[in-house]
Amino acid sequence: MKNRILIISREFGSGGRTVGKAVAQRLRIPCYDSELIQKIAEESGFTEGYVARREESAPAGFMSSALASRAFGPTNEDYLWEVQRKVILDLAGQGPCVIVGRCADYILQNEADCLKAFIHASLEYRAERIVRVYGEREESPEQRIREKDKRRAAYHRFYTNMKWGYAKNYHVSLDSQALGIEGCADVLQMLYEKSGKMSE
Amino acid sequence: MKNRILIISREFGSGGRTVGKAVAQRLRIPCYDSELIQKIAEESGFTEGYVARREESAPAGFMSSALASRAFGPTNEDYLWEVQRKVILDLAGQGPCVIVGRCADYILQNEADCLKAFIHASLEYRAERIVRVYGEREESPEQRIREKDKRRAAYHRFYTNMKWGYAKNYHVSLDSQALGIEGCADVLQMLYEKSGKMSE
Repeated sequence: MKNRILIISREFGSGGRTVGKAVAQRLRIPCYDSELIQKIAEESGFTEGYVARREESAPAGFMSSALASRAFGPTNEDYLWEVQRKVILDLAGQGPCVIVGRCADYILQNEADCLKAFIHASLEYRAERIVRVYGEREESPEQRIREKDKRRAAYHRFYTNMKWGYAKNYHVSLDSQALGIEGCADVLQMLYEKSGKMSE
Repeated sequence: MKNRILIISREFGSGGRTVGKAVAQRLRIPCYDSELIQKIAEESGFTEGYVARREESAPAGFMSSALASRAFGPTNEDYLWEVQRKVILDLAGQGPCVIVGRCADYILQNEADCLKAFIHASLEYRAERIVRVYGEREESPEQRIREKDKRRAAYHRFYTNMKWGYAKNYHVSLDSQALGIEGCADVLQMLYEKSGKMSE
């Protein structure tokens, strides 16, 4: 039987990572988030800082590079995508787990028994949250979130051809502002445990 | 305190109406679906058949009429929208309930304590389901669903300016094919009961 993997895609600042950690703790299974960056860095030979910057929350140079002509062979982004794909497939093969972000839903769609979740919240809530929880500077957090949203959407569209934030891409989408972090974790825990019973 | 209303938007054939009825039965509150058509017909003076046809699953003439120039005053669609708005506001004022479809999420956004849900499923699942459950004819159900999807999306966009099927429009979006009708009902019951506790 394929391993059951809870995959969480999330808007920047929505608390999706915190939801993932909470569910993993309750289910007593590992949660891969920043651990993914470490593993991708190890496998690729790039530094963790470089991997983190060239991923979903990539800096401004990302788009021009990612969308550049392949006339001179694969770009760094293409190479990182291949390493990322391999790391995620390896982890999913090791046992049930939670994976946050990194297009894992797309990479694992035919390779694991996936429960695909999307966590979102309003711009205002996320702006307040990244200042309060991440300790980000208080100047115009909305503008920074808008830019991250744009890049994340473009990154997903480029590598997966899926529309970011579209409900049909996921088994369950949750508003962390309305339902709370714990409320989202309750739903995902219930669905994960239920799907286990269904497939056993 | 405002009444708690569970509002279910759904793709045609996804079983969203069945989910709504199941949750309402468990919560022992009314569920308004075809009852809405009756009430809108009573209030507007149109027949139920006319109201049903001119609503979300409107026939081909709908778009040209709905998008027609208002130079000669409001169209029948505008008049029906106003009646629908009044009927939904009245029902929401009477007590906790489940309302299926009819842009109730938009109409009640500032008028009730809403839990907004969206039920979706793949085209293949819905095609199989409308033949099996609704007894629809077996010729090309996919094509009929595609047309209904298009009209429902256009109807919502026109009256609410919201993108149909976009996760951020809802507190919770669920795939009825992956999670099952009962699985969707479990999630909505839990969230409804929890939100009750939160606001009490």
